[in-house]
Amino acid sequence: MSQAELDSGRRKLDWARSHMPVHAELRRRYSEQRPFDGVTIAVGSHIEAKTGVFIETLAAAGADVVFTNSVSATTQDDVVAALLQLQHVQGYARHGCSDNELHELHLQTLRHGPQLILDDAAELTALMLDQCPDLRPRVLGVCEQTSTGVQRLQAMARDGVLSFPALAVNDTPMKHDFDNVHGTGESALTNLLAVTNLLLAGKRVVVAGFGYCGQGVAYKAQGWGARVTITEIDPRKALRAHMAGFEVAPMTDAVRNGDIYITTTGNRDVLRREHFEYMRDGAVIANAGHFHVEIAVHELQAMARGMREVRPGISEYELSDGRRINVVAHANLVNLAAPTSMGHPIEVMDQTFAMQFVAALYLLQHRARLGAGVHALPTEVDAEVAALKLASLGISIDRLSATQQDYIHAWRIGDIQSP
Amino acid sequence: MSQAELDSGRRKLDWARSHMPVHAELRRRYSEQRPFDGVTIAVGSHIEAKTGVFIETLAAAGADVVFTNSVSATTQDDVVAALLQLQHVQGYARHGCSDNELHELHLQTLRHGPQLILDDAAELTALMLDQCPDLRPRVLGVCEQTSTGVQRLQAMARDGVLSFPALAVNDTPMKHDFDNVHGTGESALTNLLAVTNLLLAGKRVVVAGFGYCGQGVAYKAQGWGARVTITEIDPRKALRAHMAGFEVAPMTDAVRNGDIYITTTGNRDVLRREHFEYMRDGAVIANAGHFHVEIAVHELQAMARGMREVRPGISEYELSDGRRINVVAHANLVNLAAPTSMGHPIEVMDQTFAMQFVAALYLLQHRARLGAGVHALPTEVDAEVAALKLASLGISIDRLSATQQDYIHAWRIGDIQSP
Amino acid sequence: MSQAELDSGRRKLDWARSHMPVHAELRRRYSEQRPFDGVTIAVGSHIEAKTGVFIETLAAAGADVVFTNSVSATTQDDVVAALLQLQHVQGYARHGCSDNELHELHLQTLRHGPQLILDDAAELTALMLDQCPDLRPRVLGVCEQTSTGVQRLQAMARDGVLSFPALAVNDTPMKHDFDNVHGTGESALTNLLAVTNLLLAGKRVVVAGFGYCGQGVAYKAQGWGARVTITEIDPRKALRAHMAGFEVAPMTDAVRNGDIYITTTGNRDVLRREHFEYMRDGAVIANAGHFHVEIAVHELQAMARGMREVRPGISEYELSDGRRINVVAHANLVNLAAPTSMGHPIEVMDQTFAMQFVAALYLLQHRARLGAGVHALPTEVDAEVAALKLASLGISIDRLSATQQDYIHAWRIGDIQSP
Amino acid sequence: MSQAELDSGRRKLDWARSHMPVHAELRRRYSEQRPFDGVTIAVGSHIEAKTGVFIETLAAAGADVVFTNSVSATTQDDVVAALLQLQHVQGYARHGCSDNELHELHLQTLRHGPQLILDDAAELTALMLDQCPDLRPRVLGVCEQTSTGVQRLQAMARDGVLSFPALAVNDTPMKHDFDNVHGTGESALTNLLAVTNLLLAGKRVVVAGFGYCGQGVAYKAQGWGARVTITEIDPRKALRAHMAGFEVAPMTDAVRNGDIYITTTGNRDVLRREHFEYMRDGAVIANAGHFHVEIAVHELQAMARGMREVRPGISEYELSDGRRINVVAHANLVNLAAPTSMGHPIEVMDQTFAMQFVAALYLLQHRARLGAGVHALPTEVDAEVAALKLASLGISIDRLSATQQDYIHAWRIGDIQSP
Repeated sequence: MSQAELDSGRRKLDWARSHMPVHAELRRRYSEQRPFDGVTIAVGSHIEAKTGVFIETLAAAGADVVFTNSVSATTQDDVVAALLQLQHVQGYARHGCSDNELHELHLQTLRHGPQLILDDAAELTALMLDQCPDLRPRVLGVCEQTSTGVQRLQAMARDGVLSFPALAVNDTPMKHDFDNVHGTGESALTNLLAVTNLLLAGKRVVVAGFGYCGQGVAYKAQGWGARVTITEIDPRKALRAHMAGFEVAPMTDAVRNGDIYITTTGNRDVLRREHFEYMRDGAVIANAGHFHVEIAVHELQAMARGMREVRPGISEYELSDGRRINVVAHANLVNLAAPTSMGHPIEVMDQTFAMQFVAALYLLQHRARLGAGVHALPTEVDAEVAALKLASLGISIDRLSATQQDYIHAWRIGDIQSP
Repeated sequence: MSQAELDSGRRKLDWARSHMPVHAELRRRYSEQRPFDGVTIAVGSHIEAKTGVFIETLAAAGADVVFTNSVSATTQDDVVAALLQLQHVQGYARHGCSDNELHELHLQTLRHGPQLILDDAAELTALMLDQCPDLRPRVLGVCEQTSTGVQRLQAMARDGVLSFPALAVNDTPMKHDFDNVHGTGESALTNLLAVTNLLLAGKRVVVAGFGYCGQGVAYKAQGWGARVTITEIDPRKALRAHMAGFEVAPMTDAVRNGDIYITTTGNRDVLRREHFEYMRDGAVIANAGHFHVEIAVHELQAMARGMREVRPGISEYELSDGRRINVVAHANLVNLAAPTSMGHPIEVMDQTFAMQFVAALYLLQHRARLGAGVHALPTEVDAEVAALKLASLGISIDRLSATQQDYIHAWRIGDIQSP
Repeated sequence: MSQAELDSGRRKLDWARSHMPVHAELRRRYSEQRPFDGVTIAVGSHIEAKTGVFIETLAAAGADVVFTNSVSATTQDDVVAALLQLQHVQGYARHGCSDNELHELHLQTLRHGPQLILDDAAELTALMLDQCPDLRPRVLGVCEQTSTGVQRLQAMARDGVLSFPALAVNDTPMKHDFDNVHGTGESALTNLLAVTNLLLAGKRVVVAGFGYCGQGVAYKAQGWGARVTITEIDPRKALRAHMAGFEVAPMTDAVRNGDIYITTTGNRDVLRREHFEYMRDGAVIANAGHFHVEIAVHELQAMARGMREVRPGISEYELSDGRRINVVAHANLVNLAAPTSMGHPIEVMDQTFAMQFVAALYLLQHRARLGAGVHALPTEVDAEVAALKLASLGISIDRLSATQQDYIHAWRIGDIQSP
Repeated sequence: MSQAELDSGRRKLDWARSHMPVHAELRRRYSEQRPFDGVTIAVGSHIEAKTGVFIETLAAAGADVVFTNSVSATTQDDVVAALLQLQHVQGYARHGCSDNELHELHLQTLRHGPQLILDDAAELTALMLDQCPDLRPRVLGVCEQTSTGVQRLQAMARDGVLSFPALAVNDTPMKHDFDNVHGTGESALTNLLAVTNLLLAGKRVVVAGFGYCGQGVAYKAQGWGARVTITEIDPRKALRAHMAGFEVAPMTDAVRNGDIYITTTGNRDVLRREHFEYMRDGAVIANAGHFHVEIAVHELQAMARGMREVRPGISEYELSDGRRINVVAHANLVNLAAPTSMGHPIEVMDQTFAMQFVAALYLLQHRARLGAGVHALPTEVDAEVAALKLASLGISIDRLSATQQDYIHAWRIGDIQSP
């Protein structure tokens, strides 16, 4: 590891740190108190500068941190190098590693016997339950930051294998209003445009899913002049999209006239053979959900008579009838895995990782009471991070007066009339 | 009651009916089956054409309906007249009645001994519990459609007086995404502009509260070129508003440069003496929350050296320093009580009353299991109304395949990888 | 004329005046100087409070004003009464007058022998040229505030009958950016919603024409959640609409799935038999262009088996196949002629009438140099009104430094490089 | 030049070509007719794939093309290599060349004695007039695509040195509605976010200038949740921004609370010492106007105690009081010169270069009639490109009927009434 690499990693950490005011406040509060003293915490995530600031903040609060990369493509080796210089921080992450190597890195991480797992898509938790059952007794709990991960933890609970508390950090206003709506929305579109060099204005964009990620992508695409069509499986979300002015259609109809497709469902095969068959020549497909499985690329491969990397990050599949379908970033997350990507915006990760931090603290302090299973993060923990962020922005808000506090709880005729 | 009045009421019902496709479907489904046969249902609401269609639909489904007006100002006597011609429908409602008369109308309604109360702000329920305890045993349950009403029902439950199940119809995506966001948003602004003849573009609009109503007002005001400031008491909602590009400030700051103020909090005294003191000459104040108590008009009265009705629906208070503050519709709901108002948009009430209808049906069928207390409406009941509405629009949506259904519940490594 | 009527008219003038800061500044500047002393000015417009403030401001600047109503329906008799009490103001305007009576009112107005005509749709000018040629020599010039009027003045010039200068006040950024985009946009939608009691969110709105009025309606409808389709005859405007995210289609296609139609073209028969034939049951049609001729109502009448006034301001035509088509305000301008209407927003008319004021002043001072024909208003006159409005809002802006002033005019290599 | 480089250049041309449908149509129309046969055309522009497709289209229409890069940083050597393989195409362009070398490349280009110059910022024209006066007689005319260039051509005309016709291609709806509003708007923000990894939502963005570029940036920033402040020197544009809901302020006020600054004025020193002195720690500054001179970086350098490249493309200046100010892409155009940039979106350049193509053709055919000076492009030429683009999108539009055509030119009372 060269000095230049170390310097580069440190500069990246500097830039990220200077835009993560909530972490600055967490370090200020907890670096003396050190609430995580003696606790080994595993962090599985994209290992780049923002995660680095999160890791150094956990260490500053007393934790022994061991990190690993959730994905190969987004790992930044210079940041890894800079992190490994820190005290109480160890890690296993390498850019460009194969799936097997990644598996091995995860196992190495787990072998430290973490007491808390701060997980991404429940991958470390699943691996531990599946393949390292001996480590299970050491685990005090898990905090999970993605929708997919929460879904999986609930599946584990249903299957009776979740023997410790898990906090659904993803399911909080602080997470889905900011990370999903704004973070995914902006970074998915920014990277899509950077990779393709296309214009959003006037495009017909089909967004699969109108959850928080889908809403973020849809509104921001519309905000730049795209015409957006939504596909959904939930009638209420479909109606919500309709009322917001979007076209709503089943995917088999939507494919007839879309220019750009973005999947955000968290499910698999959302775009598949029956859809590829009707797409326009030149259609561009990208995934902003969780895994590349949202798009059945293998079916597209089977249909194609050829493929070439027409630009970095764009695989152009040529079908037998001459139509070309362009898959961005091999259907990996376009906001993270595109060649141009630097991951989620810094400020969003400042909030999301701060949620993981306070959730970890809460779990540590209340684990006995919580018990095994998936738990919601209490409102007040969520609100605390919001308050920290508002303070960093210099924004103050109103407080209820005693009279107003009473009014909320009143119902008798005499009490709810004005003076 | 003249024939002309009857004709006018019937034409209004015709127009409303032709824009309430969900009710058309409910009538089609239930007019033979008559699930409410023999059940007396009290409906407290604004008595105008849309409520009329709801009432006739309940009657078509077998109910004996007795209705009353929740407010005097919004009652339309011609619609009342037309409704009273229907079989199995009785009612007590009169435009321009005094508070005492209104109280009396409500008591007359309750004396029919309703088994179900479809309430607005829990007013009939509160009156019954407070003043007609003998009727309580007949009551099978309550469905409530406003935030304020749900809050009050929860207060009653806390105080131990709620001896039957109450369904919080308000707390569903179908209600707050449509009625609150779009219904209140559009009708509050439309009426504000109609009453004042002012332009929204370029105005500084202060919206108190960023709940569903507040969001609706704020986004739609911004969509027409207003600069919106949000006041909040919840840090997460405040942060959400900030991230949406709105200014967020405490009301004491916001009053320094607002042109128009709209309250949507559901609480009292949101605008009060300390705020009036710093408002600009010509400030316009309106309430789109629940009750006129959101604005402490009595404090403004106490400060003013004069008042005149400068336009129909606008009370101009002149302060001792010459500044004039304009209160719209006496701080009653601007979307309902403004002189220009015809109430919430028809399509929104089609959905909201349909929710009350299916909720009433659900409560009737599951009351034993539900037990006393405030209950959420089950997701599938909510989704059913959404599906009805989508069908009426000719919109179809996607369904999960078996493989996708499985994928949602998978968590083991082997199951979550693509083929 | 009763005292109550006078009082009512004066209160309306008070309210309007308090929201017309540019006129306040014009009165301050010119009431001593009296630049219009001895000049007879004819004003043809909607005679209600805002026009009243314009008229009183002209009179304060020395003019002898004679006014008449351009349309019967929008005339407010109480405002007329209040205006007729003013010195140097005469007028001929009556609500509810027939077409013949209106014609007579216009002739009476012209018989005062105006030197300046501040016209609306060039109606007084056309009448004078057509029927009172003896008055032509007295006329020093015309100022016209509508697109339609400018088009007609250009036709007169082409036909060689325009023997005096006419200023195209309509063709200025100050007019079309504010009056057309914001004024027409907001008031057309507000009145459409008030008359119909419908919701805009989720509606398919077809806007005929993407000029300034069409843009205003389209963007504001989209801003409230409508899905907008644009029809156009100019490929550049069509492409502009497409790039803004609107659907663009010929009207024969657009009629297949629209819920609401709004015409803004300034031309005739934009909606006609071939379109009515394919509209959905319940379609709502309104005109926000200039004349009712935009919609070929007579063709709809010929096709219909019946018509009834289903609500005030809505004519429901029933076709032989049972479909019902609803025409708002008899295809007159929905923003002005709807029963709920109070005309354009006050602030917009403050700017538009101020443009007429300064244009009239400019024409008076430069008429010799201008000569016969239609002339653009000079940029600096337009900019002056903008500056007055900004000042009234307390907004200051930047000024070019001398270096920057030079930079604009430089082109030699040495001059355009930075230091 | 390696085969790999050639292949890479050709793939880039393939991708661009497949998203430039207007050029496809131009090639189809003019490759047989060859209207530019025997004409030498100089093209000065960013030499990358889109310009490459423009160049090959000119050559296909018969021209002898000689190209050069307007800027060093945006030149793509692989595309240059691929272009130099084409018949009738020569060029002088190199990535990473110094200012002196660039000057030399431009001179080499001019030495071919072009008859038409398709210019960017009038740079080749200025150089020719200034330093190669002997070539002037050969020049038939110039087409210019930027605002700055048009301004300079007008300065040349004022100074009496423009001895041939110049077409202001920039000053057409087709150019400023699409290239400036959408092209600059999207690419400036996309690159700003890609370089900084920041979030736009919730940011205070100050946009200097509310011309077409500024509008594009402002609306799209607002569309993603930023709070935008506009600075202007023209009161009408300032008022327009105010009415659109933006804050308007002089720059000396705006600098007090901005997070991000984007200049779009085309002038110099728009941000200077007096502004840097009050910016917040961490402020980010970028230029989306024409030249780096919009930002007085040399004044910032003089104020700073240190500078480091904190991320690729971001120069962090540390002031003596510890505040850090970040300049993106050395104040060069952020949409073109940022490390992540691939230039303007392809579709936008398809239209803009098509405008240059048809303008060149028009100039060639009408040069005698046009005469020396700066001329507007006729509406029909502009409309033709719009029609080509609409056709490529499969969009058809309405046509006026004969009756409607007549109506536009009518003014007599009898002719403007409906039947």
